[in-house]
Amino acid sequence: MMDVQLTTQALLPRCLTLFPERPVTSLMVAGKNEAGQPTASRHRTTLGQVARRSAQLAGALQQLGVQPGDRVATLAVNSFYHLEAYLGIPSMGAVIHTLNIRLPIEQLVWILNDSGAKVLLLDSMFLPLLPAFRAQCPELKEVIVFSAQVPEGTHGYDDLISSQPETYAWPELDEKSGAMLCYTSGTTGNPKGVLYTHRSLMLHALASGHPDAFGIGQYDVVLPIVPMFHANAWGTVHTALLYGAGLAFTGVFNDGPSVARTLQDEKATMCAGVVTVMLALLEELDRAAAAGQPYDVSALNKIGCGGTAVPEVLIRALYERHGLQMMQAWGMTETSPLATCSNVPAGIDPVSDEGFAHRSKQGRVVPFIEVALLDDHGQPVTHDGATMGRLLVRGPWIAGEYYKRGVTSDFVELDGKKWLDTGDIATISASGEVWVQDRAKDLVKSGGEWISSAEVENALMAHPGVSAAVVVAVPHPKWTERPLALFIPHGDAPSPAELREYLKGHIAKWWIPDDFLAVSELPIGATGKFLKREIREQYKNHVWTDGGMK
Amino acid sequence: MMDVQLTTQALLPRCLTLFPERPVTSLMVAGKNEAGQPTASRHRTTLGQVARRSAQLAGALQQLGVQPGDRVATLAVNSFYHLEAYLGIPSMGAVIHTLNIRLPIEQLVWILNDSGAKVLLLDSMFLPLLPAFRAQCPELKEVIVFSAQVPEGTHGYDDLISSQPETYAWPELDEKSGAMLCYTSGTTGNPKGVLYTHRSLMLHALASGHPDAFGIGQYDVVLPIVPMFHANAWGTVHTALLYGAGLAFTGVFNDGPSVARTLQDEKATMCAGVVTVMLALLEELDRAAAAGQPYDVSALNKIGCGGTAVPEVLIRALYERHGLQMMQAWGMTETSPLATCSNVPAGIDPVSDEGFAHRSKQGRVVPFIEVALLDDHGQPVTHDGATMGRLLVRGPWIAGEYYKRGVTSDFVELDGKKWLDTGDIATISASGEVWVQDRAKDLVKSGGEWISSAEVENALMAHPGVSAAVVVAVPHPKWTERPLALFIPHGDAPSPAELREYLKGHIAKWWIPDDFLAVSELPIGATGKFLKREIREQYKNHVWTDGGMK
Repeated sequence: MMDVQLTTQALLPRCLTLFPERPVTSLMVAGKNEAGQPTASRHRTTLGQVARRSAQLAGALQQLGVQPGDRVATLAVNSFYHLEAYLGIPSMGAVIHTLNIRLPIEQLVWILNDSGAKVLLLDSMFLPLLPAFRAQCPELKEVIVFSAQVPEGTHGYDDLISSQPETYAWPELDEKSGAMLCYTSGTTGNPKGVLYTHRSLMLHALASGHPDAFGIGQYDVVLPIVPMFHANAWGTVHTALLYGAGLAFTGVFNDGPSVARTLQDEKATMCAGVVTVMLALLEELDRAAAAGQPYDVSALNKIGCGGTAVPEVLIRALYERHGLQMMQAWGMTETSPLATCSNVPAGIDPVSDEGFAHRSKQGRVVPFIEVALLDDHGQPVTHDGATMGRLLVRGPWIAGEYYKRGVTSDFVELDGKKWLDTGDIATISASGEVWVQDRAKDLVKSGGEWISSAEVENALMAHPGVSAAVVVAVPHPKWTERPLALFIPHGDAPSPAELREYLKGHIAKWWIPDDFLAVSELPIGATGKFLKREIREQYKNHVWTDGGMK
Repeated sequence: MMDVQLTTQALLPRCLTLFPERPVTSLMVAGKNEAGQPTASRHRTTLGQVARRSAQLAGALQQLGVQPGDRVATLAVNSFYHLEAYLGIPSMGAVIHTLNIRLPIEQLVWILNDSGAKVLLLDSMFLPLLPAFRAQCPELKEVIVFSAQVPEGTHGYDDLISSQPETYAWPELDEKSGAMLCYTSGTTGNPKGVLYTHRSLMLHALASGHPDAFGIGQYDVVLPIVPMFHANAWGTVHTALLYGAGLAFTGVFNDGPSVARTLQDEKATMCAGVVTVMLALLEELDRAAAAGQPYDVSALNKIGCGGTAVPEVLIRALYERHGLQMMQAWGMTETSPLATCSNVPAGIDPVSDEGFAHRSKQGRVVPFIEVALLDDHGQPVTHDGATMGRLLVRGPWIAGEYYKRGVTSDFVELDGKKWLDTGDIATISASGEVWVQDRAKDLVKSGGEWISSAEVENALMAHPGVSAAVVVAVPHPKWTERPLALFIPHGDAPSPAELREYLKGHIAKWWIPDDFLAVSELPIGATGKFLKREIREQYKNHVWTDGGMK
């Protein structure tokens, strides 16, 4: 067989020749309204235009001295600009290094210095960070702004590329060379970099286009609410480029109304995002329907959701109230990220109770991914759907080391093979269904047993008076730890007694939180997840109303 | 990223754990009826059982001395037996070498000796060939018969594997090692072997499962009418195993009624086969409908067709008369085989005139495949949808050499890259749509210009009085060659004058054949295609009725 390498360069002729007219729309910041909030304008381009401009970008970067293997950083929200960088930078042999815009400046500086990026492309809204980068990132030489008017000492992206030809002499690349770099948001210690290769990105794209995964093809329009700066927007962008799907980007406008309107306007067929974003979308769909002005989201045939365990009540509500199908996917920065999908096994009605139960779990591995469980002593755990263990994963798009750090203790050996220890606690059923119970660090250890905070949260959120819930461990003199629930009420807050009673039918009695606190908001971290570490810290001295479980 | 190899071993845990209950049905020869025709019985098994037995087969072969890299041949029709061999042989590191049952014994002997297979697995119906193999294939040591009762000196498959454990210590494999071997049917000269690697098979399976290709997933039941002994049943079998689709095999029963009944009984959602088989299926569906007893083939949502150019009239008839969707695919033994698919570009109604026109062409490349055209001087030809050239193809599942022969003149260099010269003459449109005009050797060269026999045949077959047509070149004193049409009438044979008149509105006037001969049958070769070489030979002295075109 021919020795043809799997690289992002394969996306270029597909965009240029096969799918040049497929739409790419981006909500851009046009200005500010009287309340100081950004207002949106819609930018329209096509996959063909994006591919031509990505060649121009490659030409411009080459002139700025970018060599194969160099890191080129981005600090940007989702837009056609970012898409052009996604396509052009790896295809010229450089590495696109996406920075998480939600990280504090100290972490951004640390990450930039760790990657040693020479060039930074950024949205103009992040220009205020530039002095810090200039002062503290000695290797950073060139700054390119996704904007027309740019400050002294930076390049305007459109200006810079306009003089370049629309073709580029793409070099021969090895599929195992680096293409993208993304750092985990690292709740403890310094962030860790994951270097994606051309091979891993392209295999991931091939596998995720299938309907048993994300289902992205030439007739689709994909709205990746999930940011391009984190875990490659779950690969949805590469998958769209490979299969010729249109793309709709909402940029900074990821609130429920903006997302709902964009889904409607662009006739999006697929969207993907974390639970918190989807809860906001559901709320807006509900509001509009109640107001007698429902959105027309009839084109939307699949919603991918993940990042944290997806509450069954969310999956049900989207279907029952709006006819929308949500599929849960599981992965992490280190897994590219797609590892499992909750597609419902053949023979089971996806909208039956059984079907919803399957969709509330993390599901089964996509092709070429393997999973296993380890106990605390490093021994394999039975896949019986009940016994919990640390979830291990391996496959051709799973990280085998961290950038510059090599093989850390996050990697373990089992059956003579290398696996990634995900830090998740899960069960796996005999039929291969993964059910993540918790992050290992979020588990509640009560009386020598484990309580899955995720499962308690899932049960709590099914109560009509609860719109979001977080369960954390609080030290307890007798039981080591006991669960505390914090929740954002939906309407009038239900009483702790009512919630306790409600949970009795749904989870083991000793899993029921000892206290329930109604709060008006919960802290959300850089990747859209609730910050349990902060909440645990804040409530570590919580005094149980009645001393907690006896 | 982890160095995880893409091998057929990845199919095993998917069959065993994720999709163990998916059905595999096979029509087996039960006996003979009074007319001496084989009668069928239906065998039922599952993907899980097939995977367990494939491990038993690997154990048995190992005991017989099969080592990694050894060739293990099969001479068999489609069945669960052949499927077990597909899964077990490559996964143990050996190479499954499928023999085309329709080849003459001299070619089979030549091929077996070329591959040097040590072991042969065969259906009992091919036992009469055994003495010839024994006498002429010195390297062949062991013969295993897919049957209960076996002759002296052979092994009965079921007996042989029954004592083996259902697990096997599958060895570590390099994805670039050989997994399957298939010889082209070689109309001239000796057959040429194509060695598929684990990587090429698995990438092909990943890409062909997508709905823009064959569309095979866990909810599907696939009936590959296309034989497993030729071009891997177009990869449909591996794709089914990867994504968890059920399989239905019709074995020797590939006539219209058997196929139609199996599609109905097994609720097949996808089937794939060559044009001649699909014409027989259409005829049977028509017959049954006219008799007031139509088949229920409502589960069938996609028919893949290829091998030769698919007549538009067939695609239309299946839709208009039976509501069935046919997609044309193009490839050859050397291309694994899927290279292009006639999925209709986004924005065009697949059942409009425009949609059918797209589906009558070979379509656009699947991911990671590239195509190009060369003229007779080895220069690239414009992709304008009109200029013909020799079709070149390259990609990670395209052969880069022939087994034991290396890089022959079938491989050419263009833009510093290696390409396969397919021997097809095609146009490619600006939007990448491939339209195969002819095999280079089947083109009619008239007055220094080329006539596409495929296009003339396509036009002829749209006439209601024509059920099949073949157009061949016949030497002509003035024009070098002129086209002669042979056709099998549908009902009363239309007159040459009527066909000539009919074609005037559909093809260039000088492309219209000079004679039209009604025949009762046309010779079909080992891969289900009309044998144009034989027809040309038979009619090379044809005397034109009126001297032919002036």
